[in-house]
Amino acid sequence: MKLEEIYGPIRNQLRMVGEELKSKLHSENELVQQINKYILDMPGKYLRPALVLLSARTGNYRGDKDIPVATAVEIIHTATLFHDDVVDSANLRRGQPTVNSKWGDGIAVVLGDHWYSRAFSILTDIKTPKILEMLLEVINRICVGELEQLKRRYDFSFTEQEYLEIVENKTACLMSFCCRAGAWIGELSPGQTKSLADYGLNLGVAFQIVDDCLDFADTEEKVGKSLGSDLLEGKLTLPLIYAMNAANKKDAEWIKNSFELRQINNNDANRIKIMVKQSGAIDYSLRKAE
Amino acid sequence: MKLEEIYGPIRNQLRMVGEELKSKLHSENELVQQINKYILDMPGKYLRPALVLLSARTGNYRGDKDIPVATAVEIIHTATLFHDDVVDSANLRRGQPTVNSKWGDGIAVVLGDHWYSRAFSILTDIKTPKILEMLLEVINRICVGELEQLKRRYDFSFTEQEYLEIVENKTACLMSFCCRAGAWIGELSPGQTKSLADYGLNLGVAFQIVDDCLDFADTEEKVGKSLGSDLLEGKLTLPLIYAMNAANKKDAEWIKNSFELRQINNNDANRIKIMVKQSGAIDYSLRKAE
Repeated sequence: MKLEEIYGPIRNQLRMVGEELKSKLHSENELVQQINKYILDMPGKYLRPALVLLSARTGNYRGDKDIPVATAVEIIHTATLFHDDVVDSANLRRGQPTVNSKWGDGIAVVLGDHWYSRAFSILTDIKTPKILEMLLEVINRICVGELEQLKRRYDFSFTEQEYLEIVENKTACLMSFCCRAGAWIGELSPGQTKSLADYGLNLGVAFQIVDDCLDFADTEEKVGKSLGSDLLEGKLTLPLIYAMNAANKKDAEWIKNSFELRQINNNDANRIKIMVKQSGAIDYSLRKAE
Repeated sequence: MKLEEIYGPIRNQLRMVGEELKSKLHSENELVQQINKYILDMPGKYLRPALVLLSARTGNYRGDKDIPVATAVEIIHTATLFHDDVVDSANLRRGQPTVNSKWGDGIAVVLGDHWYSRAFSILTDIKTPKILEMLLEVINRICVGELEQLKRRYDFSFTEQEYLEIVENKTACLMSFCCRAGAWIGELSPGQTKSLADYGLNLGVAFQIVDDCLDFADTEEKVGKSLGSDLLEGKLTLPLIYAMNAANKKDAEWIKNSFELRQINNNDANRIKIMVKQSGAIDYSLRKAE
């Protein structure tokens, strides 16, 4: 099923989210407006707003709180990307130069803070403190997930289980929140809400695993984002964890040593990529994501 | 009048803010807890919490919302410092290594986000949406001020008036908010609230001007923070704007050229520092701050 078909019933609402993004982020400040335009003109998948809208619609919701919540979530998600791209020194996102690569790390950090505050303002405006509370808990988990991942860079005791915990925090819990928030707005039953929240969580985990597999893909043009940066930054993801366990002793030692010296150059990264692909790690990871 | 005397009537409450900071920021995550302890063990001036508490007390407030608001404001302020220090590549703050210099830029960025979300959670917990709304507007202004300052780096058309506008946004409006929030909690009259808000704004402007003058001071040991970084980062502050206007044509051209080449080394910075001091710019700036 194509994304367009899934989005069919909410096409109009997604367009309204697009307009709301422009309107709520509008700034008198020339630089802010310039960067906002650059970001909002890029075609986005609006995956998280769609989860909010579809979940609310499950309860036949016809009120006016779903668009603002969907908008706020997209703003928060994008703000985390501005900061992630600084943290990962990433140059490419959605096929375009990142904010940090175009305007510098400082501007990317502060613009992220600015977008965060705009998103929270949307949620205070519609007077749904429950949604705001839930979202703040989620942001807290995202940050802890990110920090834990940063801390565990270059650490080869990192297990698949620990990887999955971090993925739940840093990616999946926001998608789960989208479903829960939509269900809450749509006044679904606790059982229905739980089912949707679980769906969002599983979708988020799958999404991140696929994203981590893409880091081992061939060309940036195909994927539209900086590739191999996880390796260069010493970040251990599922394909590499699997490949390490599957590798022969010599190869495993070599990978471990390159990481421990914290000197992984592009040649090493390419050699590791080949090992990962040959180990069957991508198949294994994608099966996990199913 | 010493700070201790001013703080006399609220000494117990400030101690409670200190405890609240530890409790609300407490994390199960080892790394977060380690950095939190590092930050919270540093002696802070608690200037912003004190403004909240003293303003609320002006209305003889005896409720339980002033401590959480004061705590939230201190957390927000510290989160902005984590991010500022990344933006400015600062190594020293309150006489100690900054989070970015000790744990890296990535961790400093995400820890700032984490602290922001904790502060907002405190404000949703005490159910004062009005305070949260006001604070979000202020954070918005802080971000815009920061972005504007970043944009105007190395730009010699930057005027004293524009400098003062940025200072109002990036520093003074948070202090003004502290007074307004305290006044709102203490149920002061609109007139009293306005007076306190103005006081906070003026204090904030003065505070930032003094801070910018300190950047031209002699030794980091005395000041406890990275010095001269404004110059090295191409940031034009009041002393330099004044000195440029007062300088002879040759000196002004040389400063302008060094900035335009964006290659200001430590020697250049020292030469500029001497010019600034000899021009009377520090006296002029400090008179502005009075």
